Amino acid sequence: MTNSPNRKPDKSKTAMLVFQPSGRRGQVPLGISIVEASRRLGVDIEAPCGEKQVCGKCKIRIEQGSFQKPSIESSCLHAGPWQAGEEKYISPEEKENGYRMGCVATVEGDLLVFVPEAARAGKQVVSKAPRPLDITINPAVKQYYVQLVPPSLEDPAGDFERVCAALEKQYGLQSLCIDLSVLRNLHDVLNAGAWEATITVWMDQEIVHVQPGSGSRIFGLAIDVGTTTIAAYLCDLVSGQVVDTLSMMNPQVKYGEDVVSRISFHMDNPDGLKRMSADLVEGLNSLISQALAREYPLSTANEIDRPESDQVIRIQPEDILDVSIAGNTAMHHILLQLNPEPLGVIPFTPLVNHSLDIKARELGLQINPAAHIFILPNEAGFVGGDNVGVILAEEPHRQNQIQLIIDIGTNGELVLGNKDRLICASCATGPALEGAQVEFGMRAAPGAIERITIDPETHHVDFKVIGRDPWRSYSKPGEMKTKGICGSGILDAVAQLFLAGIVDKSGAFSKHQFSKRFQIHPETGMKSFVVAWAEETSIEKDVVVTQQDVRQIQLAKASIYTGCKLMMRKLGVERVDNVKIAGAFGSHIDCKLALVIGMFPDCAMDRIASVGNAAGDGCRMALLNRDKRVEADWIADNVQYMELTLEENFQWQLMEAIHLPHMTDDFSHLQGIL
Amino acid sequence: MTNSPNRKPDKSKTAMLVFQPSGRRGQVPLGISIVEASRRLGVDIEAPCGEKQVCGKCKIRIEQGSFQKPSIESSCLHAGPWQAGEEKYISPEEKENGYRMGCVATVEGDLLVFVPEAARAGKQVVSKAPRPLDITINPAVKQYYVQLVPPSLEDPAGDFERVCAALEKQYGLQSLCIDLSVLRNLHDVLNAGAWEATITVWMDQEIVHVQPGSGSRIFGLAIDVGTTTIAAYLCDLVSGQVVDTLSMMNPQVKYGEDVVSRISFHMDNPDGLKRMSADLVEGLNSLISQALAREYPLSTANEIDRPESDQVIRIQPEDILDVSIAGNTAMHHILLQLNPEPLGVIPFTPLVNHSLDIKARELGLQINPAAHIFILPNEAGFVGGDNVGVILAEEPHRQNQIQLIIDIGTNGELVLGNKDRLICASCATGPALEGAQVEFGMRAAPGAIERITIDPETHHVDFKVIGRDPWRSYSKPGEMKTKGICGSGILDAVAQLFLAGIVDKSGAFSKHQFSKRFQIHPETGMKSFVVAWAEETSIEKDVVVTQQDVRQIQLAKASIYTGCKLMMRKLGVERVDNVKIAGAFGSHIDCKLALVIGMFPDCAMDRIASVGNAAGDGCRMALLNRDKRVEADWIADNVQYMELTLEENFQWQLMEAIHLPHMTDDFSHLQGIL
Repeated sequence: MTNSPNRKPDKSKTAMLVFQPSGRRGQVPLGISIVEASRRLGVDIEAPCGEKQVCGKCKIRIEQGSFQKPSIESSCLHAGPWQAGEEKYISPEEKENGYRMGCVATVEGDLLVFVPEAARAGKQVVSKAPRPLDITINPAVKQYYVQLVPPSLEDPAGDFERVCAALEKQYGLQSLCIDLSVLRNLHDVLNAGAWEATITVWMDQEIVHVQPGSGSRIFGLAIDVGTTTIAAYLCDLVSGQVVDTLSMMNPQVKYGEDVVSRISFHMDNPDGLKRMSADLVEGLNSLISQALAREYPLSTANEIDRPESDQVIRIQPEDILDVSIAGNTAMHHILLQLNPEPLGVIPFTPLVNHSLDIKARELGLQINPAAHIFILPNEAGFVGGDNVGVILAEEPHRQNQIQLIIDIGTNGELVLGNKDRLICASCATGPALEGAQVEFGMRAAPGAIERITIDPETHHVDFKVIGRDPWRSYSKPGEMKTKGICGSGILDAVAQLFLAGIVDKSGAFSKHQFSKRFQIHPETGMKSFVVAWAEETSIEKDVVVTQQDVRQIQLAKASIYTGCKLMMRKLGVERVDNVKIAGAFGSHIDCKLALVIGMFPDCAMDRIASVGNAAGDGCRMALLNRDKRVEADWIADNVQYMELTLEENFQWQLMEAIHLPHMTDDFSHLQGIL
Repeated sequence: MTNSPNRKPDKSKTAMLVFQPSGRRGQVPLGISIVEASRRLGVDIEAPCGEKQVCGKCKIRIEQGSFQKPSIESSCLHAGPWQAGEEKYISPEEKENGYRMGCVATVEGDLLVFVPEAARAGKQVVSKAPRPLDITINPAVKQYYVQLVPPSLEDPAGDFERVCAALEKQYGLQSLCIDLSVLRNLHDVLNAGAWEATITVWMDQEIVHVQPGSGSRIFGLAIDVGTTTIAAYLCDLVSGQVVDTLSMMNPQVKYGEDVVSRISFHMDNPDGLKRMSADLVEGLNSLISQALAREYPLSTANEIDRPESDQVIRIQPEDILDVSIAGNTAMHHILLQLNPEPLGVIPFTPLVNHSLDIKARELGLQINPAAHIFILPNEAGFVGGDNVGVILAEEPHRQNQIQLIIDIGTNGELVLGNKDRLICASCATGPALEGAQVEFGMRAAPGAIERITIDPETHHVDFKVIGRDPWRSYSKPGEMKTKGICGSGILDAVAQLFLAGIVDKSGAFSKHQFSKRFQIHPETGMKSFVVAWAEETSIEKDVVVTQQDVRQIQLAKASIYTGCKLMMRKLGVERVDNVKIAGAFGSHIDCKLALVIGMFPDCAMDRIASVGNAAGDGCRMALLNRDKRVEADWIADNVQYMELTLEENFQWQLMEAIHLPHMTDDFSHLQGIL
């Protein structure tokens, strides 16, 4: 067997891998998949399915070491034998040219691997600017300036007692404790400030920072950890002002696009949970480093007495003294290294609902080590702290009107109700709205089609690509450099295809086609509609929307619509007073078109609002107002979770909602708008 | 300069050192002292003065590599040149034979070093058995058995919420939080126990341990960290029973015998504090390892329902769920890596008085990482948590009678008062009572003379040595193997010399000597009295008590007596109702003889009691009864510290108290007893 290509790989040995076009290279153990190798070398290959071999996105080309090339000596059969499932995604011609699925092909020796543009995990355009919010500034962490009586033989009390006495006398604070790391510096700091100091206290309970004299400004971070995207707001803890907004892809995307893939990665890998958690913490630390590297103008909004000036400041790690984190339950569990497995099996219980306070040093966040991190509570196994944030920001529990909140991220979460009762649900939108499991789907990254119009008369298509302002009509074909279609583009396409009569109410392509853009695949018989011709792309292929893509969007919108309807039934309401669309995706979509395809129950157009990253807003409120933390736990405790799949008629309702638009609502009032 | 013996040592290079007779060897950097090298190689050389070159205890012999031996080639001048101060402790003859001071001689190349018996840091006989105490068992840490309703789709609340609900329903516990490390295991433990579990809660606040089913017994450690000795009581946290008593030398002894030497070591070495702290933690962990290695009978006193049996159990690290630590303020600060420097300079303030709760994992104690460690509060810079422990155990603050408590350890601490008012003070006894700075002084270790009688008529001496039951009278001279005299032996010697008329009231050797044991040094003129002849020793020298030794004891006793008297004056009392002698030394001394030499104010003999390790007892009370922790802080806050040296007439009173016995009291009533 020694020379057979089927020999068991020796995992103690390594091979040299080089990835093109990035040029990243390094030694990796034999036997691992090429996708796994790409992760270890910092090359991100798209693997939305979490290496389940069902998405075909991770198609790569073996340039050297391939067993396909007879010119290379037999010892170079370095990517393992061809596997049964690969022909599903790789054509015979592609196979001939060395294409493999990166999640199937393994490292059996030195390899040169080319990652085609389509398989490269691009950097998503993250647009999560903070909304102006009316927040009462009452942060968990506050600074107190004290002047102390120096110790003497007559009054030889300890330094800590001296500080406590001053804080009680000047500010009424009582029964304080102190972080050990702060206590260790206390004497030197008090001495350095000649017994004048600025003391930072967490929740009127614990001294977490001590600075000589009048101290420096202190900051907090509100972090919204999404499955795909992380957004962080750096806030001045005195003025409440948002000093900076930072964002990045969730580094865990490399382990799979959705939470189920991540949970699977944990279950399949003994150290999977630790690795995903460490990657996330590393990601958060890189966001923090970005903030620390920048210069910020000294704000006059700061209430602490400092002269106005044009000076800029750079923030030090120890100046960041509070963090609030909101994420869905899976992100929450993975971050804290809590076993996420129970989230995926009936009855889908989290390990904990309640909010948590965790020391920064315990999580490994590179801020002030004594700072506490506030983790927003979870509502249920599928509805986490991000939804609590949405409710904190939108406050349906304080209103008389019946509000419907649809938070469309990688998962869909729904909230319905008013001050009397609130219910929430999670709906399986599938990843289509994020651009995954769609033929030419991609994330909202440069090169993605984000807007589409189709002329009902001529079937002429116009479109706009992320990263380029002029629409197709005002550009030369070669300037578009289209790579694929993102979520809002797909939604546009389906609505426009329907409005143009190209697909009918059932979502099927109409039999009466006259457009040359209508194609039928000669082998599979799959119908499709060309949005961008090959010469308008950078991938040298027509970018199309297939019949299956339309079905994916139909399923997603049906899922949301059914969820809303079942929740309305549960709450006993016929109509909602207003609808709020939250989430980054929600702020990109055209609400009218979403209503056209029947994504949510009918509502007057002026009662529909896109509220952007409401989860991040709520997280920021929890950072800046300690009462919101109590409210967050109240919300998690009082919002009633509803498992949609257990509802009577769920399947039937879902099937009915598949239609474009669904059959039960009347959209005549939209005619004038469209 | 390259070949000169005076060249600057290159600290990046190392040399091989071998210590005899232990045979310990290893590479050490060039340029460090031989005492420092001995520490690094785990050989303990006595350095009571903290390498201040003032005690001469660290005298060692260079066997090879010495610059004294011309037969060795010049490159072997390996212990550095002779220094000016060394001749004070090393005679010309010793110098000729290669003797050096270990704190002065440096490593300049390979060396073979002989450590004479007198310089070896012996293992002290630690006798700190627990007294039976009447403690109401109400520990900070308690176990609760719960039966949970497994989660279902109808009741999908989180595991933590499920546990909290059960604890509230069954035991009334509310608003609990949970340690992150415990939360991480929660789901698996609940599953393993089929939703029956034993939950350990700290202070009705935080869940610190979860075990499946009925759980196992839980334990706590009360640790008294003395300057010289560490004593630990392993207690069953349910029954309160002391399961084991463990003790060891404080590993910091190698940095100096008293707290001042340790503080100096910190000031002279940038990493001194960390090293001393790490050594102490390592020492505590070795005590814990000892306990974990032993087998203990399953006690029937345990109230948790388990069958009685002859079975033994071994304790697991995670079963140790609480620790209380009492130490003097310097030990407190060094353990926690708090800068002890302010303790040594006016106005002698600690960094903190208040008690502290610190996670075991933060201190590095190898017990359950989620456990809290309770650090007893400090009364003042020189009176620490050990004295709070003494007061907790003896409860002078609950009594009408005026109580005087004298805690004689490496430092002397005094408490005086009753329920109306308590004052405390620290007195500089000097190390003589611990056997240091005395010509043949040593710790209470095997070979030390601990009891002495002198016949007033014949001046015949009888004595007893630690580690050997028969007194000298019942032994052959060669059987005694005397090495020196420990604290209680010195005290006996001085009292007996006084009672026999060999020294007079002033402490001077009487002019009318007839004993052949009386000697006058031919060179120095120092008078001395032979306690053990050379043939009765293992060091081949007469063991003597010198005039200077008598002076040391006079100073120590005068210091204690003066302190007591000044405190009585401050409190406005003429006489104390009872006297308690605490501390290991206190339990060894003969109270009658202490009274004879005037160590403390006159008191009826039946009102004087030795109470052993009261500090450890109080520490145990704090471990087993949470109310005692509140009481401890009350004590630290309310006992008034008195700086004796600032009192009017302090010096005058001290001089007056030097006499044997002091001049002011009447000891006629003792005549019958002696």
